[in-house]
Amino acid sequence: MLKVGILGGGQLGKMLLEAAAPYPVETHVLENDPECPAASLCDHFTTGDIRNFEDVYAFGKSLDKITIEIEQVNIEALEKLASEGVVVVPEPRVLRLIKNKISQKQYYREHQIPTADFVITHSRQELIDQLSFLPAVHKIGEGGYDGKGVQLLTNANDLSRGFEAPAVLEKRVPIKKELAVMIAINEKNETAIYPLVEMCFDPTLNLLDTQLCPAQVDPLIASQATAIALQVVEGFRSPGLFAVELFLDTQDQILVNETAPRVHNSGHHTIEAIESSQFDMLWRILLSLSLGDTRLRSPSVMINVVGTGTSGPAHYHGINELASIPGLFWHCYEKKVAKPGRKMGHITLLGGDVNTLQQQALGLKSKVAVSGSSER
Amino acid sequence: MLKVGILGGGQLGKMLLEAAAPYPVETHVLENDPECPAASLCDHFTTGDIRNFEDVYAFGKSLDKITIEIEQVNIEALEKLASEGVVVVPEPRVLRLIKNKISQKQYYREHQIPTADFVITHSRQELIDQLSFLPAVHKIGEGGYDGKGVQLLTNANDLSRGFEAPAVLEKRVPIKKELAVMIAINEKNETAIYPLVEMCFDPTLNLLDTQLCPAQVDPLIASQATAIALQVVEGFRSPGLFAVELFLDTQDQILVNETAPRVHNSGHHTIEAIESSQFDMLWRILLSLSLGDTRLRSPSVMINVVGTGTSGPAHYHGINELASIPGLFWHCYEKKVAKPGRKMGHITLLGGDVNTLQQQALGLKSKVAVSGSSER
Repeated sequence: MLKVGILGGGQLGKMLLEAAAPYPVETHVLENDPECPAASLCDHFTTGDIRNFEDVYAFGKSLDKITIEIEQVNIEALEKLASEGVVVVPEPRVLRLIKNKISQKQYYREHQIPTADFVITHSRQELIDQLSFLPAVHKIGEGGYDGKGVQLLTNANDLSRGFEAPAVLEKRVPIKKELAVMIAINEKNETAIYPLVEMCFDPTLNLLDTQLCPAQVDPLIASQATAIALQVVEGFRSPGLFAVELFLDTQDQILVNETAPRVHNSGHHTIEAIESSQFDMLWRILLSLSLGDTRLRSPSVMINVVGTGTSGPAHYHGINELASIPGLFWHCYEKKVAKPGRKMGHITLLGGDVNTLQQQALGLKSKVAVSGSSER
Repeated sequence: MLKVGILGGGQLGKMLLEAAAPYPVETHVLENDPECPAASLCDHFTTGDIRNFEDVYAFGKSLDKITIEIEQVNIEALEKLASEGVVVVPEPRVLRLIKNKISQKQYYREHQIPTADFVITHSRQELIDQLSFLPAVHKIGEGGYDGKGVQLLTNANDLSRGFEAPAVLEKRVPIKKELAVMIAINEKNETAIYPLVEMCFDPTLNLLDTQLCPAQVDPLIASQATAIALQVVEGFRSPGLFAVELFLDTQDQILVNETAPRVHNSGHHTIEAIESSQFDMLWRILLSLSLGDTRLRSPSVMINVVGTGTSGPAHYHGINELASIPGLFWHCYEKKVAKPGRKMGHITLLGGDVNTLQQQALGLKSKVAVSGSSER
C-alpha cells in the first residue's frame, strides 16, 4: 500500500485523514503534539518538529509521497527527500516560493498577475524611506500565520510597528470583498477548479469568519477571478491543491492577495457542498487518481467556531442544539485546549440560498461557543 | 470527553469511526485482529475477543457507552456492564433477543408482525417430523452469519443437511423482492426512518449484491413495509439503530425476514445519499444528540465489492478507473487479505434515476475486482 506522510497534525490534517478513509493508503503524520487533532486518525503517528531538518528527513525517508497541512515546514529536508525519490506534493520549490511573502509577491509581479503594489523592506530604517507609500500593510517575509506577522501602517506614528526583518510593504487596497478559489492540479497537468467563495473576516481576530459559496458577485467578476487564480496555479508547474485568495477592490479590480499551497480554511464547505471535497481531491492527486467533480451541490455558508473567553481545557457550549438543525454540519476539531481566537471547529450550512443561510449562520454565532472555562 | 466503545473492528466499525470525526468523543475498539479495518481510526484499540466475557467486560468497564458492529458478542458481559452503569446501545436484552434466530422469530409472532410461518427444531430427528413443512429454510439459532448457518431444504433428501442444534425451520416464501428499512430510535423514544431500500442478492454467495434506493415498489407497498419495520423496532423499547429486512412475496404480502440491531450493509448508501448517514445517526444516539435528517438527496445504487479468485494479500484491480466517474463513491475497507466472497469494499452511485444507475453498476462489476493474487 502507498505510504503517504502529512507534515502537521492540526484540523486540516485531521480532515485530510477523514477523507483518506475510502482509499487504500497507509497514512503517516509528523507533529510535535501527540494529542493533536490528527494523531488518532492516522495509521502511524510520529512525534517530531515539522520545522526541524532531521525530524522531517527521518519521517519522510521511508515514505512514497509527502504533503503538508501548514507552510511552516523544513523545506531543505523536503528538497533532500525529493532528490532521493520521495514525491513531495506540491514540489518543495513551490513551497519555498510561497512560504516567503517576498518571493510570492515577486512571483505575481513576474507573471503579470494583478496584485497590490508593493516594495520590499529589510529593516525599520528602510520603512522610513517609504513613508509616502502609506497607508500600507507590512507583512513579514517568513514566519507569519493566521494574522501574525502583519501590521497595518497608516502614518508615520505606525512605523515603529514595522518589522526589523525582510518584509513586503503592500499598498493598502480599498477592499469591497475577499474572494478565494481553490484549484487542484495533478501530475498530468489536469486541473479541477472549485466554485468561487466569498469570505467575511472578523475585524479583530483576522480569522476567517463567514464564508459563502457561491460568492455573491457578478458572473463576470467570478470568471475573471477564476481565470486569475488559474494563472497563478498554472505558473507553479507542480501538482498540488492550492487556495488563491483575492481582493475585489472598490473599483471592481481583482487582485491576488496570497496563495496557500495546501488544503485551506476557505474550502471547508467542500466536505458537504461539493462531491469531491478539497481533502478528497488532494488524495486523488497523491494517489494518481482522476481528479474529482467540483460542481456545487447546494449553496453553503461556513463559519469558524473559535475559542472565546479564557484559555483552558475546552468546554463546548450550545453544541447539542446544532444537531437538531437540518442542513447543518458541525465539525469538532477535538483540540484539548481552547484559547481565545483558536479554531476549535466549524459549521457548514447547506440550503436554498446564501442570504438566508448567512442570516442563519449569524444567529448561530451567539448560541455556540468553545471556551477554556465551563461557564460561557 | 465521552468514552464510547465499539465491539468489532470490521468495515462497519471503520465507517462508524469515520463518521465520529466531527463529534467530541473518545473512541475505543475491541477486536482480535490489530490489523482490522477499524484499528487505525479509533483513539484506543484493544486486542481481544468480543465473544469472551473477560475481554468484553475488561474493555467496557471504564467506558461511558458501548455499541456493537456485529451481533456475535458476549452478551453476558454487556449485561453486567449495563448493570454497573455503562450504557449499552442497543440494550443487551434486545441483542439477546435478536442474536438467537428462534427468539427473534418468536418475537415477531408474539407481536403479530407478519413473518414467514415457522416451527422450531432441536435436532435432525425433529426435522423428519416436519417433512410436510418443506420446502423450507433451516436457520441455526445461534452462530450463523453472512449466509452461514442457513440451509434450503426442498425434499426428504435434504434433511441430512439440517442442523443438529436448536434452529428455526421457516416456510419457504416465493420472493418477489427483498427490501430493508433502517430505523433509528433514541433514548427519548424519538424515531428517524430511512427511505425503503431494495436489495438484489448474488445467488451463489448470498452476500448483498446491488442495493437500490428508493426501492422500486408501489408507494403503498413502501409505506406498509415501513410501518411494519417501525412496529418491529418500537417493540424493542430500546435506543439503537436497526435494519429491518423484509420480503415482498409474489402475492405482494410483506413479511419480516430478520432484524439487525446495528449499522448494516443495506445502509451504506446513506453515507452519500442521505444527509445523516446510518453511521452519523448512531453517534447522534450514542451522544444524546437530536436525530438527523433522513431525506434522500439523490437516488442511489450500491454494490459490494467482494474478493474473487484465490485467498491472499489483497490486490485491487480496476479501482483507479472508478475515480474518473462522476457521482461514484468508492470505499476501500483496507483489509490486508482477500478471500473469495469477503467484503473488500463498496461502491455507491448517485444520479438521476435508479434504473440508469443500476445499469451503470452492473457494468462496473465486470471491471472492478479484489483478489488474493496480482492477476485477475
